[in-house]
Amino acid sequence: MPRTSKFVHSMCGTQLVYVAVVVICGGVSMLLADDGRSAPSNVPGREFPKIHDDLRVTFRVSAPDAQKVRVAPRGDDNGLGRGPYDMQRDASGVWTVTTPPVRPGFHYYELVIDGFRCNDPNSETFFGWGQQTSGLEVPDAKLDFHEAKNLPHGEVRTLWYHSKVTGQLRRAFVYTPPDYDAQLQRHYPVLYLQHGAGESERAWSAQGRAGFILDNLLAAGQARPMLVVMDNGYATPMGIAKEGTGRVNAFADVVVKELIPTVDARYRTMPQREHRAIAGLSMGAGQALAIGLANLDMFASIGVFSGGMRNFDPRVSYAGVFADPTTANKKIRLLWMACGTVDGGYASLKASHQALQASGVQHVWFECPGTHEWQVWRKCLHEFAQRLFPK
Amino acid sequence: MPRTSKFVHSMCGTQLVYVAVVVICGGVSMLLADDGRSAPSNVPGREFPKIHDDLRVTFRVSAPDAQKVRVAPRGDDNGLGRGPYDMQRDASGVWTVTTPPVRPGFHYYELVIDGFRCNDPNSETFFGWGQQTSGLEVPDAKLDFHEAKNLPHGEVRTLWYHSKVTGQLRRAFVYTPPDYDAQLQRHYPVLYLQHGAGESERAWSAQGRAGFILDNLLAAGQARPMLVVMDNGYATPMGIAKEGTGRVNAFADVVVKELIPTVDARYRTMPQREHRAIAGLSMGAGQALAIGLANLDMFASIGVFSGGMRNFDPRVSYAGVFADPTTANKKIRLLWMACGTVDGGYASLKASHQALQASGVQHVWFECPGTHEWQVWRKCLHEFAQRLFPK
Repeated sequence: MPRTSKFVHSMCGTQLVYVAVVVICGGVSMLLADDGRSAPSNVPGREFPKIHDDLRVTFRVSAPDAQKVRVAPRGDDNGLGRGPYDMQRDASGVWTVTTPPVRPGFHYYELVIDGFRCNDPNSETFFGWGQQTSGLEVPDAKLDFHEAKNLPHGEVRTLWYHSKVTGQLRRAFVYTPPDYDAQLQRHYPVLYLQHGAGESERAWSAQGRAGFILDNLLAAGQARPMLVVMDNGYATPMGIAKEGTGRVNAFADVVVKELIPTVDARYRTMPQREHRAIAGLSMGAGQALAIGLANLDMFASIGVFSGGMRNFDPRVSYAGVFADPTTANKKIRLLWMACGTVDGGYASLKASHQALQASGVQHVWFECPGTHEWQVWRKCLHEFAQRLFPK
Repeated sequence: MPRTSKFVHSMCGTQLVYVAVVVICGGVSMLLADDGRSAPSNVPGREFPKIHDDLRVTFRVSAPDAQKVRVAPRGDDNGLGRGPYDMQRDASGVWTVTTPPVRPGFHYYELVIDGFRCNDPNSETFFGWGQQTSGLEVPDAKLDFHEAKNLPHGEVRTLWYHSKVTGQLRRAFVYTPPDYDAQLQRHYPVLYLQHGAGESERAWSAQGRAGFILDNLLAAGQARPMLVVMDNGYATPMGIAKEGTGRVNAFADVVVKELIPTVDARYRTMPQREHRAIAGLSMGAGQALAIGLANLDMFASIGVFSGGMRNFDPRVSYAGVFADPTTANKKIRLLWMACGTVDGGYASLKASHQALQASGVQHVWFECPGTHEWQVWRKCLHEFAQRLFPK
């Protein structure tokens, strides 16, 4: 698995590599070459963070003038453990810590330098927690469904469009499958796929590797070729931001009135409801349910990853769309729900699944070991995409 | 101008906005509302950095436990001035500094927290200096050629391809003009466009706004519709990295043997030399010259932005391609050279221009006020693109 992540390192400037190694290692003994591998999420040429065979992780930074340096996983159930981890200073001012074994997957984290929370210069940054945040990719030696491989790749394209709802230009990303430009008569179903709170339209490609997951499924014939539209789940209605009224979010309006018509106009889509799905993680799961269930004339399939459905009651929730199971089962082609088993929201979402089951609403429940983080959501997309859309 | 950058703010989560403002401003008096505007490069909802009408910039961060906090522009001739700027602590541990007036444009910078160089959590990050680095966008009230506007937008697409030269997957970005998917019989000329040292294939879209520059030119009928291919200028040959032999870069091989054939196979290009150009900035300028002049059977036009041509002698440099001006003038359709007038390399590049002029080699020289930074390179692309490719 680490081998398939090599493409990241192909981007390195060798002159930078050697400078960085000298700076970071000056005055300290190097770890043995076989004592861990540089994380695939490191920027080119940086040795640390390193992941050991038993999934302990060693972080190291040089901060000679700092009094206290820590590594802080972001979030309560981050796969890096609870932390923060105090780093130990050596005589030259290089600080190091090795964590206990961590979970495979993608984990946000920060350094804390004399109380100031900042990014680790050694790692790529990812938009999460409302800002650019360091991310650590911990490969799972048994899984490569989300890795970049030498097989046909689709494209992820920027889609800029003007929103009358917000009065602003917005950017979405659109995954087109490998054959999109070659099969000019072909039309495609569309999955609208949303990120979580504090993230952005960049998340499903960067943190989530959605494009590689689809590329790999398509190469194996395990999913229908589809477009995947990844927009930003925040949409402040025009004029509202200045008035400071808070949490108003017009994303549902943007999706229904602007995004879908734009996508159907610019791309070769199949614009019928049975060929359109909406899914999301955490906050995006709530949005997928709210938007999808309120617009079943537009969506036939809904994916719910680790979120939504708090205080769910099938008789009344979502304007009573589940109240009559027979009607609901006719309207909804696929309701797909999933959660990591050690996610803080697991019990709640599983209870909703059980309530649906008891009331006879057809749906799929998927669970896998994992916290509230991207390895689970990658698995969700991988499973969900295989069930999407009629042949 | 600041108004056209609003799209950045359209992505903000309002719940994050208010949390951030409270945290950052707790215990300190707010600047007056008219005393500066939040930079368009801030992450959503962050008030600082703020840009004042006279182009002074105020930075502010909370770091109660730090002993010394500074703002450090990156690079010797950064448009933010020389710095580093010491920030002043107030009683609650919030640190602030206001710089002298700065240049409009895009400027890399760092915070220095007790000697540790890190990113400003308030700003977007950009891949430069071999890592993710904070960037400050300072709008120029007189210029909007690079701003996102409400007009037809092209796409920037990911192009993943396997390289036999490096043994790895590589990612390039391809700008396709607004009509690309609608004009299916049309074929397009191609500009290969390279970043500078320590940057990546992301730079021309993020820092450089290449897509918006082309969108705006095309909407005004000021350039031919073209594809723009932006690859990573680093390419370590397979096996070399492990042997530690240093600065070997096989990018020229990648371009000639792999990238161009891939682009010509996957996109509707005009594959003749007169419809193919190569350009770059700084390190990329050197690559454009080296690759373009060594392959005049493939390229007819070359763009040189703020780099290359050190110790240039038209009689012998570049394998003597300029030695006979008549032959050179027949082979090269457009040689376009440019530099900011206060760039450290200005005198050297201008001397090369004068040497070419004296020897009778046709070319275009462009200069504008500016340092070694992106505002100049945006202007370069804007000017260069208007002269590219025959009708």
